[in-house]
Amino acid sequence: MTLPGTARLPGLADRLATVRAFTERLCDPLEAEDHVVQSMPEASPAKWHLAHTTWFFETFVLAKGRPGFRPYREGWSHLFNSYYVAAGPRHARSERGLLSRPTVAEVLAYRSAVSDQVQELLRSPQGERAGVAEAAELGLHHEQQHQELLLTDLQHLLSRNPLEPVYASRRLPGPTGSTPQGWIERPGGIVLIGHEGAGFAFDNEGPPHRAFLEPFGIASRPVSAGEFASFIEDGGYDRAELWLSDGFTAAVQGGWRAPPYWRSHDGAWTRFSLHGRIAVDPGAPVTGVSYYEADAYARWVGARLPTETEWESVARDAPVTGQFVEDGLLVAGPTSGDAPLFGAAWVWTASPYVAYPGFRPAAGAVGEYNGKFMVNQMVLRGGSCFSSREHLRATYRNFFPPHSRWQVTGIRLARQ
Amino acid sequence: MTLPGTARLPGLADRLATVRAFTERLCDPLEAEDHVVQSMPEASPAKWHLAHTTWFFETFVLAKGRPGFRPYREGWSHLFNSYYVAAGPRHARSERGLLSRPTVAEVLAYRSAVSDQVQELLRSPQGERAGVAEAAELGLHHEQQHQELLLTDLQHLLSRNPLEPVYASRRLPGPTGSTPQGWIERPGGIVLIGHEGAGFAFDNEGPPHRAFLEPFGIASRPVSAGEFASFIEDGGYDRAELWLSDGFTAAVQGGWRAPPYWRSHDGAWTRFSLHGRIAVDPGAPVTGVSYYEADAYARWVGARLPTETEWESVARDAPVTGQFVEDGLLVAGPTSGDAPLFGAAWVWTASPYVAYPGFRPAAGAVGEYNGKFMVNQMVLRGGSCFSSREHLRATYRNFFPPHSRWQVTGIRLARQ
Amino acid sequence: MTLPGTARLPGLADRLATVRAFTERLCDPLEAEDHVVQSMPEASPAKWHLAHTTWFFETFVLAKGRPGFRPYREGWSHLFNSYYVAAGPRHARSERGLLSRPTVAEVLAYRSAVSDQVQELLRSPQGERAGVAEAAELGLHHEQQHQELLLTDLQHLLSRNPLEPVYASRRLPGPTGSTPQGWIERPGGIVLIGHEGAGFAFDNEGPPHRAFLEPFGIASRPVSAGEFASFIEDGGYDRAELWLSDGFTAAVQGGWRAPPYWRSHDGAWTRFSLHGRIAVDPGAPVTGVSYYEADAYARWVGARLPTETEWESVARDAPVTGQFVEDGLLVAGPTSGDAPLFGAAWVWTASPYVAYPGFRPAAGAVGEYNGKFMVNQMVLRGGSCFSSREHLRATYRNFFPPHSRWQVTGIRLARQ
Amino acid sequence: MTLPGTARLPGLADRLATVRAFTERLCDPLEAEDHVVQSMPEASPAKWHLAHTTWFFETFVLAKGRPGFRPYREGWSHLFNSYYVAAGPRHARSERGLLSRPTVAEVLAYRSAVSDQVQELLRSPQGERAGVAEAAELGLHHEQQHQELLLTDLQHLLSRNPLEPVYASRRLPGPTGSTPQGWIERPGGIVLIGHEGAGFAFDNEGPPHRAFLEPFGIASRPVSAGEFASFIEDGGYDRAELWLSDGFTAAVQGGWRAPPYWRSHDGAWTRFSLHGRIAVDPGAPVTGVSYYEADAYARWVGARLPTETEWESVARDAPVTGQFVEDGLLVAGPTSGDAPLFGAAWVWTASPYVAYPGFRPAAGAVGEYNGKFMVNQMVLRGGSCFSSREHLRATYRNFFPPHSRWQVTGIRLARQ
Repeated sequence: MTLPGTARLPGLADRLATVRAFTERLCDPLEAEDHVVQSMPEASPAKWHLAHTTWFFETFVLAKGRPGFRPYREGWSHLFNSYYVAAGPRHARSERGLLSRPTVAEVLAYRSAVSDQVQELLRSPQGERAGVAEAAELGLHHEQQHQELLLTDLQHLLSRNPLEPVYASRRLPGPTGSTPQGWIERPGGIVLIGHEGAGFAFDNEGPPHRAFLEPFGIASRPVSAGEFASFIEDGGYDRAELWLSDGFTAAVQGGWRAPPYWRSHDGAWTRFSLHGRIAVDPGAPVTGVSYYEADAYARWVGARLPTETEWESVARDAPVTGQFVEDGLLVAGPTSGDAPLFGAAWVWTASPYVAYPGFRPAAGAVGEYNGKFMVNQMVLRGGSCFSSREHLRATYRNFFPPHSRWQVTGIRLARQ
Repeated sequence: MTLPGTARLPGLADRLATVRAFTERLCDPLEAEDHVVQSMPEASPAKWHLAHTTWFFETFVLAKGRPGFRPYREGWSHLFNSYYVAAGPRHARSERGLLSRPTVAEVLAYRSAVSDQVQELLRSPQGERAGVAEAAELGLHHEQQHQELLLTDLQHLLSRNPLEPVYASRRLPGPTGSTPQGWIERPGGIVLIGHEGAGFAFDNEGPPHRAFLEPFGIASRPVSAGEFASFIEDGGYDRAELWLSDGFTAAVQGGWRAPPYWRSHDGAWTRFSLHGRIAVDPGAPVTGVSYYEADAYARWVGARLPTETEWESVARDAPVTGQFVEDGLLVAGPTSGDAPLFGAAWVWTASPYVAYPGFRPAAGAVGEYNGKFMVNQMVLRGGSCFSSREHLRATYRNFFPPHSRWQVTGIRLARQ
Repeated sequence: MTLPGTARLPGLADRLATVRAFTERLCDPLEAEDHVVQSMPEASPAKWHLAHTTWFFETFVLAKGRPGFRPYREGWSHLFNSYYVAAGPRHARSERGLLSRPTVAEVLAYRSAVSDQVQELLRSPQGERAGVAEAAELGLHHEQQHQELLLTDLQHLLSRNPLEPVYASRRLPGPTGSTPQGWIERPGGIVLIGHEGAGFAFDNEGPPHRAFLEPFGIASRPVSAGEFASFIEDGGYDRAELWLSDGFTAAVQGGWRAPPYWRSHDGAWTRFSLHGRIAVDPGAPVTGVSYYEADAYARWVGARLPTETEWESVARDAPVTGQFVEDGLLVAGPTSGDAPLFGAAWVWTASPYVAYPGFRPAAGAVGEYNGKFMVNQMVLRGGSCFSSREHLRATYRNFFPPHSRWQVTGIRLARQ
Repeated sequence: MTLPGTARLPGLADRLATVRAFTERLCDPLEAEDHVVQSMPEASPAKWHLAHTTWFFETFVLAKGRPGFRPYREGWSHLFNSYYVAAGPRHARSERGLLSRPTVAEVLAYRSAVSDQVQELLRSPQGERAGVAEAAELGLHHEQQHQELLLTDLQHLLSRNPLEPVYASRRLPGPTGSTPQGWIERPGGIVLIGHEGAGFAFDNEGPPHRAFLEPFGIASRPVSAGEFASFIEDGGYDRAELWLSDGFTAAVQGGWRAPPYWRSHDGAWTRFSLHGRIAVDPGAPVTGVSYYEADAYARWVGARLPTETEWESVARDAPVTGQFVEDGLLVAGPTSGDAPLFGAAWVWTASPYVAYPGFRPAAGAVGEYNGKFMVNQMVLRGGSCFSSREHLRATYRNFFPPHSRWQVTGIRLARQ
């Protein structure tokens, strides 16, 4: 994480208030019952997201900055800790759905109390203590990550209910035609990769370093749902030669026949979404696919997925424009024209998630943050329509295991 | 099920109103969040119990008795059906905890609407239709079964929360001394077993038939927690020669070192209960043990478990007295004197659950009720402090798999 | 086990020599490679059967009877022990197939050495020591049990090989017509059950005791393969209402569509056997079915399975005639006329395997033999075409879990 | 795969004869029984290795080169195929241990027949047909891979037998002192990576391409067993902060406390090997560790693992010297002086196994060879004392999942 030389605490406090309030706003449409359930081990209940992000501020900001700090409730730290070493024992991830207590109301009171104390701290001289501003800034971005997870976890939960409840009733834009995909060609050579400079970044985005690229092209827009439907119709899910071995095994064992949430009705595709079940818009980016499906699709069209280095070298100078969660429309819109590299859908890269040359985790408990996950995951880039605009940047490295299918994940092709 | 020749519908309607209201009263101390969670595949959320018992009346009473019947909500029947054949497809048992919707409030409204219609039906001429009274009577007893399951499932759920929430704060009676156990001796011979006559019984309690018993003795009271603690201290959980082979495997794989919910603090035993964590009362019956533990304990003391025939032959003439859920105290009290055969704790018998000679399941969907479970289960008798008094009788056959440990199950010894 | 007052040791030695040699004869058609593989956790390699039965004589006969006894090889006792307590630690059952050593030749040498020593012991004064003759007699019957298991385990192993190797090439008799099934009616009342008197019996066959039976009928012959084929054609495997709940789950999860080893070719049924793949003889008893299938079939025809008490009361006075392994033909022959109660196929009874009233396991390690398995199993009666004639008797209680499908298990109906 | 412009078939035939004979020589110490067992799903029986490598020549060489080709036996192709698409259905990998037939003798006859035909083909005009020489060359290297697997699989099998059988009795060299580890420093910059030129290489070693390296150092020798023992003594297996998250989970769930095959006797380490149980030589390279252990060890000493690019850039100009399987000593010897980069132990690199820029799989069934495994694996470099010298080269990319612990895998450190 890199911070400006002078931490501007009141500005940080204001941004923090906005981000914290936005988390709660995302839960507005939920009933108490919706906050409790863990629909699979990889997902967490909304209540847990609300509490865990608060625990983060309590543990890494208040405990550091407030003299005589005492936790809000004895025992809660154990429940809402996701860190297994430095910050004490943690409750098993797969058992987060067993916690009917504390209630949603109690968790919201916890949020409010901690938010108030953090605001007070950041506006007081103690806020100048070493590490406080850095931890608060980190907590802000950590909370934005959990905002996206809250939505994807919720979408998964609601999808498992045969009643298919609606999170947000919105009038959706009609389908639009898809633009033909072109290629952005780049000459390769030595490129500079990774974060440097003044703004915030996670530790895994550095250190900045050089890499060598052969000439390559990257697609002008993501793969559309209509294009992916053609892959299905061509028997894509049955043609083992298109798939990685582990991928085909996952597809067979999981009974994959289409992206998650898709269903076919009389030859037309629908998909479950936070707006309930809606028609698949053929011109919108395909989302929800695993790395295995993205890779198989790319092989089917004779292309490949971009490396994260290729993607970043293209995105480096691009503005962070696109569709984001603040825009209030949670469905990725049509891929018209040359679609921006940000928003809409995270794209799977061909790059496994590993440390950059010279990488050192941040010291202390927050150092566990990213480094310990650097195996068995693939890097995703760009952000989605469930991300906040200000959370994204060209050097941002998201990562998930290659079989993951519940995030807003799509495909952008590359070629040599 | 046997019903009196003349169905007395208004009396039935009154009893039904009482039973339905009692279910809701059991949920009074719960938060909305507590109604949603399924803490293991064998358990169900409180909300599911509330809805499923209502579905039963809707499907087997209203659909039979009301002209032009239409279900309360399309799609709910699928969610709250536990019957896999005759009454349509059902939602997978292990996924009951995924249903955050309908909400508790919606389920209570469903209960209220169906209860009203059943009351109206039973007090109208349509209530005389064939099968209506029988189904309503069955629904009443079915609901009483679920009242007990609701409490045991809830106890399990709360026990999985490190905060150990309290369902009911009560002042509990202090521990009392345990009375020495004596033996009730019986000469054996041909005994009459099974239900006959006018009152209600489940189909598995009949037909009445003869059985032959060798002379035997049955203990004057259940095994106490203090006695079971001695078994633990004697290394009972480590001595394979005391156990059935499957039982020892279950104990080792499950890490069993004491009854479920027990924990040792500085040499003193406590246990989790609906009253929170409390001291184990050495004079009270041990509860929560599996058949395997009951069987191993019996072998340890050189006795055995009674057969269900032995138990019933003794209980036949005994009054249904003891501790029951209506008494408002959910902890089984001390085993003073010759303890009654009913209430306190279900006792594991040595009898696998099989059909009586000449058994025929009731016709129609409700016929699936008991017969299809007649394998891989052991019979329990007597009822517990979580049962309703009027739900119990000498011929009542409860049954659970031998590894089950979350019901209020205890031990009463027998000998030849 | 009950033995005659005077142990007739030379006679026992002769019988033992015959039985031990027969085990080896059963392995004659095998290659070394066939002796090694464990095709599922419930089955054991032929080599293990050869060694384990030898270990039994070494541990319970030689160690008892021979002064200065020392085991044949250090460490082998651990490998070939199936008893988990009294006779020391044992090698995990599911890992028996990991033992490529000792080789078959080494195990046969072990057999030979131990057999010689047992012969010598039984013909010497030490053979008169307490317990020696009893243990040797028990070892003989134990070995006969393993002869049958050796064949069923081998049949299972060869069936898993796509090449379908043939164990024994024999000319099989052609199919014969099936005789209509009649009923043997019995009036019920008090019957005497269990073994008493001079001959050998396992501990679980006693003590002899009285039981009460209602009037019943038992089928004059087993259910034939042709009759079972009609059940299949009538959709029997898809009709949940015919099945126990656990049974239907097992059938769906296991993909059961016919008895194990059956396959349909152009509308005709074949089955894998020790003779390779052969046509199903419609007039021969159906074999290989689980308790669940037997129970579902009985419900389909409106009958039920007999209790073990019913079966024994009928078999008590019947001669032990039928088809047995010594006859050299390993396929159960046609069910012509009133088929004998013994041989052909074990029949599933409706009785779970439990202790008889007053049962006490034999003292010492051999006491673990039967009692510890008295849960989660169903009793089978009568013996099969893989059993030895002299191994069988009316009181003999075989037992397997209700889902077991690799023994020679069939169906004989009963009715009230 | 790259082959010389003119395929020198007689030379190839000679090399092939040598390699095929060596496979059989590796099986000389085995009993028939040792060839059959599959000790875990990842391993294969020796018999399967013997047959599968033969199937490869039959399917990709003889079928291509011999007019009127017919397989040696119908049905065997199905059994010995490891390729799931282009070459037809295959027998499930996890069921290879179920095949007691064909026997070892039958498989050796199959080997001999196919070897003879391949020799004949390569020395005949048909050998000039397109693709024949390439496939034969590929088959040779494929067979060398399986030679190493045969030994590692066998070592695993024998280790699971409590008798700890000895594969090869050899006098082993005594322990020698360990040399202090130094660093080979490199300045980085643009390096050329991947295979080019005349010799054989697998498809995944190309295409040759440029990569950029920051300055780095690589250790002068592998980590020794004594050094790894210090990690254990320092609590390395219990210190979560040293481990990747997935790695620590694997270590806890697998009960890892030391490298596989290691055991502590009175404070001294021994390990199981193909020579039986032997003392751990503290000066020899540690072997058998997973990527997770290698990574944790590197973190413990404040270093890291090298990337495959770093390793290859150093190895590029190094001679292929070291300890290899032909030397007849199957234990990696002491790490004296600056140890060669080849032989002794494969070293885990920090590089996940992915395609090189511009990678295209070879056409046809053999194209499935490497590309489809390019996910969830880590690259290993250098070869081991179980590898053949002529099988290795600087561009060779071996790969295994990060939890794998049965190959001859060790650690060589790197630093920035």
